[in-house]
Amino acid sequence: MNSLECPKASLARRLNNFSGSVARDILSRTQNKEIISFAGGLPDASLWEDLVLPTVPPAAYQYGPSEGEMPLRQIMADRASAFGLDAEASRTLITSGSQQGLDLAAKLVIEPGTPVLVEAPTYLAALQVFQLFEADIQSLPLDTEGIDAAVLDRYLEQTKAPLAYLNPSFQNPSGCCYSLERRREIAEVLDRHATILLEDDPYRDLSYESDAPPPIASFLKNTPWIYLSSVSKTLIPGLRLGSLICSEELFPSLLKLKQAADLHSNRPAQFIATELLSDAQKNAERIEKLRSHYQQKRDLMESTLRADFKSLADWKKPSGGMFFWLTLKDRVDLSETLEECLKQNVAFMPGSPFFAHKNDHPCCIRLNFSLVSREKLENGTRVISRVIKSQSGYYSK
Amino acid sequence: MNSLECPKASLARRLNNFSGSVARDILSRTQNKEIISFAGGLPDASLWEDLVLPTVPPAAYQYGPSEGEMPLRQIMADRASAFGLDAEASRTLITSGSQQGLDLAAKLVIEPGTPVLVEAPTYLAALQVFQLFEADIQSLPLDTEGIDAAVLDRYLEQTKAPLAYLNPSFQNPSGCCYSLERRREIAEVLDRHATILLEDDPYRDLSYESDAPPPIASFLKNTPWIYLSSVSKTLIPGLRLGSLICSEELFPSLLKLKQAADLHSNRPAQFIATELLSDAQKNAERIEKLRSHYQQKRDLMESTLRADFKSLADWKKPSGGMFFWLTLKDRVDLSETLEECLKQNVAFMPGSPFFAHKNDHPCCIRLNFSLVSREKLENGTRVISRVIKSQSGYYSK
Repeated sequence: MNSLECPKASLARRLNNFSGSVARDILSRTQNKEIISFAGGLPDASLWEDLVLPTVPPAAYQYGPSEGEMPLRQIMADRASAFGLDAEASRTLITSGSQQGLDLAAKLVIEPGTPVLVEAPTYLAALQVFQLFEADIQSLPLDTEGIDAAVLDRYLEQTKAPLAYLNPSFQNPSGCCYSLERRREIAEVLDRHATILLEDDPYRDLSYESDAPPPIASFLKNTPWIYLSSVSKTLIPGLRLGSLICSEELFPSLLKLKQAADLHSNRPAQFIATELLSDAQKNAERIEKLRSHYQQKRDLMESTLRADFKSLADWKKPSGGMFFWLTLKDRVDLSETLEECLKQNVAFMPGSPFFAHKNDHPCCIRLNFSLVSREKLENGTRVISRVIKSQSGYYSK
Repeated sequence: MNSLECPKASLARRLNNFSGSVARDILSRTQNKEIISFAGGLPDASLWEDLVLPTVPPAAYQYGPSEGEMPLRQIMADRASAFGLDAEASRTLITSGSQQGLDLAAKLVIEPGTPVLVEAPTYLAALQVFQLFEADIQSLPLDTEGIDAAVLDRYLEQTKAPLAYLNPSFQNPSGCCYSLERRREIAEVLDRHATILLEDDPYRDLSYESDAPPPIASFLKNTPWIYLSSVSKTLIPGLRLGSLICSEELFPSLLKLKQAADLHSNRPAQFIATELLSDAQKNAERIEKLRSHYQQKRDLMESTLRADFKSLADWKKPSGGMFFWLTLKDRVDLSETLEECLKQNVAFMPGSPFFAHKNDHPCCIRLNFSLVSREKLENGTRVISRVIKSQSGYYSK
């Protein structure tokens, strides 16, 4: 935002470097079209065909607690406890999606110029929030096991960053799942620097080989932490429900921030989620079905990519989540690639919005495999590969 | 928040002067008790006894647009157009309650030290948000017709405040409804200073004598404006739905801010609200019933206050909204009054949280009349009056 867009009003400086979401821009350009979209991170709606939402009792009509409904807080805390986190319902906040958790955490810690550590690449909507609060964003490269603990140590020594944002389980966009060893090492480094960990974990349940190791937050002994989870990937995104679990000292402030943001999250959705999640057996079966469905789609995309992209890009088959992350061998103008693909009714996400520093990264694309039907998946990747080949002069080599 | 509450973490300065909501503190202390509460601003749940929520179609399960569902945006824009606002669905954003509208507006304009003009008294949750964003809050006294336009003019001349927050129709807490003349004068002053108007209008439909004049925003010719509305007071608060309508230049930034805050509001609630509000005739009947119900409660409170408070306080019978605002004739320690009343199972809101500047205001209390049953209303006000009388030494005079 600047004087050009709003000549009359005096707006806050925080809008200067605040960018919209590229994914949502592409989404709005591709709506109501017969398009094959690998661009977003939308769940497969065919999984809900039989799902009828429970009715909402009149008890849910009145204003409710800012913390969220206790039965749902308990379910989210129990779930996190089961994979090793020191979680309690009393320190669990129901949020409007995990996106709201990012907003609350940013309000809690970030002032103009506050150094915040992120992964390269990282979740673009988190970058958006940190930029909005004028953080000085520092990023560390991801290798196959996560960020490097020794490098993290040096970075925190230099920057004194009070906040590290990590997405260690089947990361969006890279698909990376931090190893157990790396998680322990990183926790130790964060503890030593008293850096708050903001751990974003929406994809944990979408594992296709083995479960993700326990959250990094579960290994912390000293420093405060915030752990974000969501029902968007494994239940219903439209409910806009997530949970924020945190160490004790942060909870009172986060609760007040939640109250100031929206008083409380929508109660009908909380009653619906509680009803749907309260039968543990049924829920486990539902997630098993989801995993198997997405695993097949992932495997299909792996084989189409082997056919079309082998000479064009490198990638690692993701062991969970919703995305393939391709690093192109030749540098091409991806905005041009995208324009051409959109003309041919195919959408994907260019990699650059996932990096904090715009020019200092390889040429990558993110492909979502959860939404597109199996029938269209093969056609879609073929279109993208052909456009890239024509651009990079592949055929002339 | 400070180093005492969180010794290990480095938190943002914005938390230093950020207070929780007194109303919500009292609410949490009075939950699960047989208490007569005049403290909050909760609608009367007996009005929903026959209300069954419509079922939600699977179309609402997927991620949705940040702007909100178009049919609901259209309904909210049409409603605002009907009472004179220059409203269009394309400039209407569905928010998570009007509280989220306050958060988005604050992010748009307020930096540390930004002067923001408010009424004295004003809505306490707005003060909370403005304090969070470290505004330099300036307040102007309310008379029976609103704030004084000439005084506003001088204030804006001095402070150059880029934002004025006004709640001109049946204000919370004072019940004040700005006259038509005053609205026109204020709009002219705001236009002259290019001060953005943030107009909060959740009580408009709860009028008991005559309709409120058109919004102040409808008289603006030059300066940008944001107009907040809500379905909490006239439909179902638990849905957490509000709308933000604004002048054209502000919409792109507010949309991006919404996206960063929570991606979008919950869709099942938006489908439910659309279904419930789309029959204009039925909706008008429902609001008529609501008005008549609350009017009777207001009149009952007026007569009990005449009996119990005539010697203790001055007030103006509110012509809309949910509150009586009493200015006590003697100064008493209201925290002591509240403690004693809570022991006798009666709650009310002390007036001080509704003032930006803590010591520079009369001794007031806010009494909600929408929630308490008619049977208990009389007993409740009697308890409060007795406690005040015993404190202020009334009997000994």
